[in-house]
Amino acid sequence: MKEILAEIITIGDEILYGQITDTNAQWMSAELDQIGVNVLRSTTIGDNEKQMLTAFREAEARVDLVLMTGGLGPTNDDITMPTLAKYFDCAIVQNLEVHEHVRHFFESQGIPFNESNKKQSLVPENAKILPNELGTAPVTWFERNGKIFVSMPGVPYEMKNILHASVLPKIQEYFNTPFIHHRIIKTVGIGESFLAEKIKDWEENLPSNIALAYLPSVGQVKLRLTAKGDNENELIEAVQAQIDSILPIAQKYIFGYDKISLEEAIGDLLTKRNKSIAFAESCSGGYLQHKITQVRGSSKFFQGGIVPYHNELKINLLGVKKETIEQYGAVSEECVIEMANRVREKFNADIGAASSGVAGPDGGTEEKPVGTIWIAYADGKQTVTKKLQLTQNRMLNIELTEISVLNLVRKSLTL
Amino acid sequence: MKEILAEIITIGDEILYGQITDTNAQWMSAELDQIGVNVLRSTTIGDNEKQMLTAFREAEARVDLVLMTGGLGPTNDDITMPTLAKYFDCAIVQNLEVHEHVRHFFESQGIPFNESNKKQSLVPENAKILPNELGTAPVTWFERNGKIFVSMPGVPYEMKNILHASVLPKIQEYFNTPFIHHRIIKTVGIGESFLAEKIKDWEENLPSNIALAYLPSVGQVKLRLTAKGDNENELIEAVQAQIDSILPIAQKYIFGYDKISLEEAIGDLLTKRNKSIAFAESCSGGYLQHKITQVRGSSKFFQGGIVPYHNELKINLLGVKKETIEQYGAVSEECVIEMANRVREKFNADIGAASSGVAGPDGGTEEKPVGTIWIAYADGKQTVTKKLQLTQNRMLNIELTEISVLNLVRKSLTL
Repeated sequence: MKEILAEIITIGDEILYGQITDTNAQWMSAELDQIGVNVLRSTTIGDNEKQMLTAFREAEARVDLVLMTGGLGPTNDDITMPTLAKYFDCAIVQNLEVHEHVRHFFESQGIPFNESNKKQSLVPENAKILPNELGTAPVTWFERNGKIFVSMPGVPYEMKNILHASVLPKIQEYFNTPFIHHRIIKTVGIGESFLAEKIKDWEENLPSNIALAYLPSVGQVKLRLTAKGDNENELIEAVQAQIDSILPIAQKYIFGYDKISLEEAIGDLLTKRNKSIAFAESCSGGYLQHKITQVRGSSKFFQGGIVPYHNELKINLLGVKKETIEQYGAVSEECVIEMANRVREKFNADIGAASSGVAGPDGGTEEKPVGTIWIAYADGKQTVTKKLQLTQNRMLNIELTEISVLNLVRKSLTL
Repeated sequence: MKEILAEIITIGDEILYGQITDTNAQWMSAELDQIGVNVLRSTTIGDNEKQMLTAFREAEARVDLVLMTGGLGPTNDDITMPTLAKYFDCAIVQNLEVHEHVRHFFESQGIPFNESNKKQSLVPENAKILPNELGTAPVTWFERNGKIFVSMPGVPYEMKNILHASVLPKIQEYFNTPFIHHRIIKTVGIGESFLAEKIKDWEENLPSNIALAYLPSVGQVKLRLTAKGDNENELIEAVQAQIDSILPIAQKYIFGYDKISLEEAIGDLLTKRNKSIAFAESCSGGYLQHKITQVRGSSKFFQGGIVPYHNELKINLLGVKKETIEQYGAVSEECVIEMANRVREKFNADIGAASSGVAGPDGGTEEKPVGTIWIAYADGKQTVTKKLQLTQNRMLNIELTEISVLNLVRKSLTL
């Protein structure tokens, strides 16, 4: 089976200057990956003829398919269209169909069709024109010696619509692409190298048509399995068999699969168990509540929470005993146990969870240095606590506390 | 003055497969732009020796400086280090300093130092090693024929720390970059095109050696003034004169300058006025409290807050009148006024602020569609409210609510 290689070229000074993040490249990569096209490289260049011609030449030598976005607007700094005409050595001609589409697009919105908009119907003679339903920039498809160049507008929603409606189907048809199957196993509470050590034997025994990649992020590691081949059902079954066989080793770290986030997984778990939750946050300062309420429909399992940032509020509002804080301090196992139990009662929730610690960069002591954080889970029957010893970085400590509390909830409910 | 050209290379199959968005490239581009280095191209390649060697060769031919991130982890798919050694034709050696740093990094967190972690102290013999305070991946700096290659970890907070602490200063020193003076004027509460219209005359009268850029982000617009030249003091004075002359037109939208965040500016304002604040959040779900507690030292002005996600908690815990919610609903001016006043009293703060609305994507009605959000400010003397009509996007609505509440606090305290 011939591997189809692709390069993505995003064009725009505003990307090179770092003024906007290029999300088109990621989106196109993921879409190509899904249809079994291998993205070999992704390149960003400015609105500059010389750089564009060089990038086109390099890409044509390397890959079968070039997808590009940007530089198609009506202003003078947009030069992708004439540069493509130069590269494919052909004339620029007025395309009547595009001209009518652009005219109709503006007139239907009551906007006059002016000279600079007319420019958008000038396209290279060699190109096939594909429709752009949501905008006015032309979409062009070039073929030369079995290789394909496609130029699309940089406006993300226009590009996405075009890719789905016409470009991807045409690519699949032109290259007769193979079937590809991905699954992602999502873990929490174990570092990449320790997970790798634990699943070493499993990894070594993976069949040759299934590839494994480790994708670490803050507090989490994703394992991606990729299978390529002709028989769709066989591939899906083969990947599932590998997931089944990793479970005895790694199940305690796995919170979900594919697109689900940790917060969504906790939400699903609480919903399934018919449990509600409330949070008392000191050092995490509302971040737990924010991440949980980012989940669509979180009101089904989230009761609410409190950030009693000062000791007097922990005592007077939340109901932590004054003596507990006097004797052990607010950053203590004793304090988070009371916080978790009191927030559970006050917010009328099945489960209470709490954090208290030194997020830093100030406030550390010899006994409780920056990064010392206590967390607790309470459900009326059991109370579980954990001491974290994290980093010097405030935001990282907040993020890791959030993940650790959710993992404590997950483990308390499932293990 | 010689122009310094740079290329950014981000390495990682997970980027090429479209599984994560590469934000490092944008961030590095913006930082290089700040010191007057011109980014010519940004390239993403996979963890693949052949592709890396090709990209290195092409970049070395084109530019003076290559900044790369990624591929430095302890697992077998991470091959940036040996590939750099091959490219620069040198041996890989164990670096004792890095070895001790990695050992200490793990042991101080109570994590055993295993074989795969030892791999991180193997570095190319030709490279200078720069410190990585927040992680274990080595940072390497190569020089050849007046050109520089720098390899950094792909974990964004590690990379950012390294870039600021050592890489950018070393680049400025090595290339003797020209003096560039940037000031950023930060505004909130006005859209880009409206701000542009208001300051049109001012913009047209800017001297030719001062360039203006509009940098819009969610709810905020930054104006960046850039002056390039030889005489540092003259440039600083010329830019300051322009800032002074924009104040009569735009002061009511300006919350600060340069690196300060909106949250830090509100913190400074509260500290200066010797006022404390507490938040009652419904639709913003803890995001206000999270953003405020991201500010170092926020315990000086932040008392705490509550997320009473359900009506019964708004009534029983926070003290909103049952009749208010029955008569007007939780998403109402009457409800947020009581929320702001009650949270102020309960949390013993000088100022209370509140949000209640339909963040979406579900829960909208004809009368109160998704994006309808009420916010309030109360300080015991005055109560100020505002109705927002935002978007269909849940996270965007949460972000815009947070910014709008802080802007309401700012305006109530200063205007």
